[in-house]
Amino acid sequence: MEIQLALGRRIRRLREEYGISQEKFALKIEMDRTYFASVEAGKRNISLRNLAKIAGGLEITLSELFDGVA
Amino acid sequence: MEIQLALGRRIRRLREEYGISQEKFALKIEMDRTYFASVEAGKRNISLRNLAKIAGGLEITLSELFDGVA
Repeated sequence: MEIQLALGRRIRRLREEYGISQEKFALKIEMDRTYFASVEAGKRNISLRNLAKIAGGLEITLSELFDGVA
Repeated sequence: MEIQLALGRRIRRLREEYGISQEKFALKIEMDRTYFASVEAGKRNISLRNLAKIAGGLEITLSELFDGVA
């Protein structure tokens, strides 16, 4: 559970730095907005392909996405 | 699918460098051996918690696990 929370916080911070709302970001990466919100809230055991979608939307690598997370 | 294959290859290489068989590694991280084999074969859309288990077993961070993958 801890890893989900740490990653959710990391994604939220990166998205905010990217300067895009949760809603617009979810739309951009074609992910359900409610699902994406629950990822940021640390409530999802998200899959590799969805992780790749998020990293792609933020224009970073998966390695960068996880930087400092674990 | 491409990301699954790239990650599977990365995991296999890291495990071999770590010097442990697929079977012993799966046992060490308490993951079904058949499931772990299919992850290395790039056939699984693996979840965050299982990714964390694998990184933990290899004694590396998730960021390091994904280094060079995407």
